[in-house]
Amino acid sequence: MKKAINPKNAQFPLPVVLVSCCDSEGNDNIITVAMTTNICRKIPHLGIVINGEKYSAKLIKETREFAVNIPNAEMIKKVDFCGESHGDQIDKFAQTKLTKIDSQLIRPKIIKECPINIECKLKDIYSIESSNLFIGEIVKTHIDEDILDSDGKIIYLKLNPIVYAEKRYYNLRNSIGYRGFSKKQ
Amino acid sequence: MKKAINPKNAQFPLPVVLVSCCDSEGNDNIITVAMTTNICRKIPHLGIVINGEKYSAKLIKETREFAVNIPNAEMIKKVDFCGESHGDQIDKFAQTKLTKIDSQLIRPKIIKECPINIECKLKDIYSIESSNLFIGEIVKTHIDEDILDSDGKIIYLKLNPIVYAEKRYYNLRNSIGYRGFSKKQ
Repeated sequence: MKKAINPKNAQFPLPVVLVSCCDSEGNDNIITVAMTTNICRKIPHLGIVINGEKYSAKLIKETREFAVNIPNAEMIKKVDFCGESHGDQIDKFAQTKLTKIDSQLIRPKIIKECPINIECKLKDIYSIESSNLFIGEIVKTHIDEDILDSDGKIIYLKLNPIVYAEKRYYNLRNSIGYRGFSKKQ
Repeated sequence: MKKAINPKNAQFPLPVVLVSCCDSEGNDNIITVAMTTNICRKIPHLGIVINGEKYSAKLIKETREFAVNIPNAEMIKKVDFCGESHGDQIDKFAQTKLTKIDSQLIRPKIIKECPINIECKLKDIYSIESSNLFIGEIVKTHIDEDILDSDGKIIYLKLNPIVYAEKRYYNLRNSIGYRGFSKKQ
C-alpha cells in the first residue's frame, strides 16, 4: 500500500563528496556535500548543491574554482565532521589532519587521502531559493593507482565510496549487474 | 600514488531511477536515468539529466511533467532494459510488465513496483552540449508503507535502492553512521 505525502526532498541515495575551496588569499576550506551529480559527459561537467549562505558558497563565488574529492568509507568520521562544522570558525584541514596538496589547474587544494580528486572551474550557478547549484567544468582528475585495475578502470568496491540518504551514510555491498546485461542473458 | 588524467566524467556512484513520462496523447514511456540529484529542500526540487536527443527528453519538453520512480535492486533487469531500449520503438511498460498507475497531479503514470514515486512539474532546463538537466519541482511523493518505520522514516536497506558507477550497478551494504555522529562520540 502506497502513502501519498506532500512534496518532500527526493528520496534517493546520493554520493558524499568533500568539496575543497579557498578564498582569494589562499585560505582553504572543506565542505561535505551530498547533492551532487554528473551533468555532461561530452564536455565533462558536474553539479554540487550548497546553501548560498554557507562560507564555502562564498569562497567558490569569490575564486570561481573548487575541487570535488571522493572520500572512502574509512574516512566517514572526518567526512561527517567537515559537514557539521563551520569553516569560517575553524581550520578543517588542521582539525581533521587531512593532507592538502596542490592542484594542477586551480587554486583550491585537493585532499590527498581521497582516492579521487576532480578539479573544477565554475561555469555557472543555478539558484532555487537559498540553494545554489554550482555547475563546474571538470579540468583535471586525479585517481589513486591503488583503486585502478589493469585496464585503468576504477574498482568501485576498492574505492569504497559513501552514499547518503535521509541523515544516514551507507557503503556499497556488491555489483549486481553491468550496463546492458539484460539484453545479453 | 595518484595518476592525473584529463577531464572525465565525475567518478562517484549515482542513484538509478526510472523516469516515467508521456506525450500529449498519453502514450507512456520509461527511461532509466543515473544522473540525478536533489537541488533544493526548502521548495523541493530535483534534477535529472537526459540527452536532449532522446525520445523521453522530447516527451518531457512536450508535457512539462515527469515522475521519478525509485526502483529496488530486485528490479535490476527491468531497470537495465529500460535504459538500453528505445521508447519510440517499443512499449516499455508492456515489455517489462511494469504496472502503470495514475499519478495525482501530473499526466505521466507512476510505476507501481517502485517503492517511491515522485511527481514533478518541469521548472526549467539547463543545457550543456546535448545534455539536458531537467529541473523539476516535486509536487507529490508516494512511498510504499512496507519500507517505512513506525516514525514514518524510510528504511533504506529495506528500500534496497540501486546506485550506478562507470557501467556497473551496485546495492547498499549497511549504514556506517548518521549525520552528526562525529560530534557525539
